Amino acid sequence: MEIQVNEGILNLNERVALENKRLFGENGLFVINIMGSPGAGKTTVLEKTIDILVNSVRLAVIEGDIYTSKDARRIEKHGVPVKQINTGGACHLDAKMVSGALGEIDLRHVDLLIIENVGNLVCPVEFNLGEDIKIAVLSITEGDDKPLKYPLLFRESAAVILNKMDLIDFTDIDMDSLRSDIKKINPGVEIFEVSARTGKGLDEWARWLIKKVREKNG
Amino acid sequence: MEIQVNEGILNLNERVALENKRLFGENGLFVINIMGSPGAGKTTVLEKTIDILVNSVRLAVIEGDIYTSKDARRIEKHGVPVKQINTGGACHLDAKMVSGALGEIDLRHVDLLIIENVGNLVCPVEFNLGEDIKIAVLSITEGDDKPLKYPLLFRESAAVILNKMDLIDFTDIDMDSLRSDIKKINPGVEIFEVSARTGKGLDEWARWLIKKVREKNG
Repeated sequence: MEIQVNEGILNLNERVALENKRLFGENGLFVINIMGSPGAGKTTVLEKTIDILVNSVRLAVIEGDIYTSKDARRIEKHGVPVKQINTGGACHLDAKMVSGALGEIDLRHVDLLIIENVGNLVCPVEFNLGEDIKIAVLSITEGDDKPLKYPLLFRESAAVILNKMDLIDFTDIDMDSLRSDIKKINPGVEIFEVSARTGKGLDEWARWLIKKVREKNG
Repeated sequence: MEIQVNEGILNLNERVALENKRLFGENGLFVINIMGSPGAGKTTVLEKTIDILVNSVRLAVIEGDIYTSKDARRIEKHGVPVKQINTGGACHLDAKMVSGALGEIDLRHVDLLIIENVGNLVCPVEFNLGEDIKIAVLSITEGDDKPLKYPLLFRESAAVILNKMDLIDFTDIDMDSLRSDIKKINPGVEIFEVSARTGKGLDEWARWLIKKVREKNG
């Protein structure tokens, strides 16, 4: 019975996600849904990415969080419109929450909408928001076993950002095994090795992202 | 409707959790439920804790994971009985899964049962397993904002293990603010600063845990 109920919720979510997708298409928006563990560095990656992109792409951000608006306040300082969604306990964003937030963003003047999901490697992946692509952020301090333990996120993502590379010398991580596990799950995925703290590697990721935005909008 | 359904599932879980609790009591078991983000270092903390405790306490371990049995295989090498639960996609253990695993452990010869939950800061906290205490593992590389962003785990935990302290010099973390946020949420909580990698700080945590086990069993 639990499964039936969940399927019902997921089907409802898919319908609203399709509505969101239609709205994104009409307004020429490219939309990414960023996921990763708590503390993987999603918000820091986002802050640095915004600083690189802000002069070439019109940005807006939706911040998903359970209770606080800490992340939204961090993003705001970078001069882009940001809308906070508090899930009130839920471990993921869903399409309806995003749909509600869209009413408060002037979509006509945005090229790239970035949605930062709740920190969690499981639940957010199961809920489409209508986005064009999913992005996984994994910090190398989390260990090299994560892709096989949480395969769905890595299978569904168009790119994986391996963050905190500045700490590589202080971990026991096997980067070859990490990269090969990710490619085994998702052969076509792009992998970017970055340090959001030092900024290293983020230019390459930002160039890839701009290309994706331009491809959609011609 | 989603809320009603969730309440139904939670009530059912509470009933099974009470059954588990009764069984633990009858067999003189002290049970801890360890939670934290993916990559916080739960399994490594556990491995090192087992090595310290193995000569003074009779141990058994239940490993919760979504798909793999990687962690159970790691624990096995330390010479304690371990039972793997695969949740098959679910982001947390529930009392029924634990109840099923208990049938395969000889509870009469165990003093301390350690349950490692699925890596997740949200869902596992909402499902009692019948444990005596919850333990939170947070790695300092996750950032000092996590207690306020995921307060429920920190409110419900009897102890917080701050792991990866060997990396403290390479992070921007404010330890005073981290400790004070945790104490604000849960004034009575014990906080242990450890490095599971180097072993530093784990003796103190293990001593505290042994004391808890002895207190229950007289």
